Amino acid sequence: MADSKQDIMDATYDALCRHGYADLSIQKIADEFDKGKSLIYYHYEDKQDLILTFLDFVYDDIEASYKSTEGKNPEKRMEDFLDYTLGLKDESQWEFLKAYLELRAHAAHKEAFAEKFREIDDMAQQNTVEILEGMGSSHPEEHSKLILAMIEGVASKKVSVGDREGLHSFKDKLQAEISRLVEK
Amino acid sequence: MADSKQDIMDATYDALCRHGYADLSIQKIADEFDKGKSLIYYHYEDKQDLILTFLDFVYDDIEASYKSTEGKNPEKRMEDFLDYTLGLKDESQWEFLKAYLELRAHAAHKEAFAEKFREIDDMAQQNTVEILEGMGSSHPEEHSKLILAMIEGVASKKVSVGDREGLHSFKDKLQAEISRLVEK
Repeated sequence: MADSKQDIMDATYDALCRHGYADLSIQKIADEFDKGKSLIYYHYEDKQDLILTFLDFVYDDIEASYKSTEGKNPEKRMEDFLDYTLGLKDESQWEFLKAYLELRAHAAHKEAFAEKFREIDDMAQQNTVEILEGMGSSHPEEHSKLILAMIEGVASKKVSVGDREGLHSFKDKLQAEISRLVEK
Repeated sequence: MADSKQDIMDATYDALCRHGYADLSIQKIADEFDKGKSLIYYHYEDKQDLILTFLDFVYDDIEASYKSTEGKNPEKRMEDFLDYTLGLKDESQWEFLKAYLELRAHAAHKEAFAEKFREIDDMAQQNTVEILEGMGSSHPEEHSKLILAMIEGVASKKVSVGDREGLHSFKDKLQAEISRLVEK
């Protein structure tokens, strides 16, 4: 049973990367694996119910990514954090970032989704504050909010217009800006 | 004919505020005015075709908002720009911001939408550079990119989780950060 849930989550990830959220259907998720639509309906009432569980998986994935950098030096942790949140590591991350931002935008109309994003945002804020403290920031809470806004903003802008190169080059600007914030 | 197109655009705006994009349908747009669905299909092939025209109306609205502040002092122009882009002026702006961000996110999967957002982003960049030059920024292009990323990011974050107060209070942080950027 645990395996079939994991398979459904993997298929949901693939279907989101391929179609985005607005055009997603249970059928399109079923098309991504070989166990059929009825297995999905056995576990989930509808697309929304499934996506809520999927957002828990996303939360766990983000948490694991944060934890994996603990103990490294803070500058390296910040760089890993930027790579991860900007989806710079590989093609699949870039495709997923598209769907992720679409889910986030849709959360404005779905309180149950919004609840999940609040948890994700709190975790990101906590993680960034911790890294900034390590870097010697005098106002880690404030700086974290500015940095997270810049990350989310540039991701939203660049992903929506397909400017992957622009996202890459913005990382340098962000690193310079973070250094400036921390050193002042 | 021009009037009925304007009516359809107004109805689209209202329907987007009420339902968001993912749940939007031609029927829901028709529900917002009294001329019936057939008039919409007379002008537009489908929802996507209609939204493309709607994005041109959005472009014109943004352009008019920028132009309306020309001639004011640059600090006041920057404040007006923040109020407008953060949707702080009234309830309807806040509701529309939700739908706008959803459309932007969906653009990652619709090249025709992405094209419109590129034009909107270029216009925002140009407008912000002009204001920053007036404020005495030494690197208006770079500063503009950072500021626009922060605006978009905080809008995306706060709107998605329904934190309207957080959006209001971030405006002060943004103004402080803009002053700091310009003065360094």
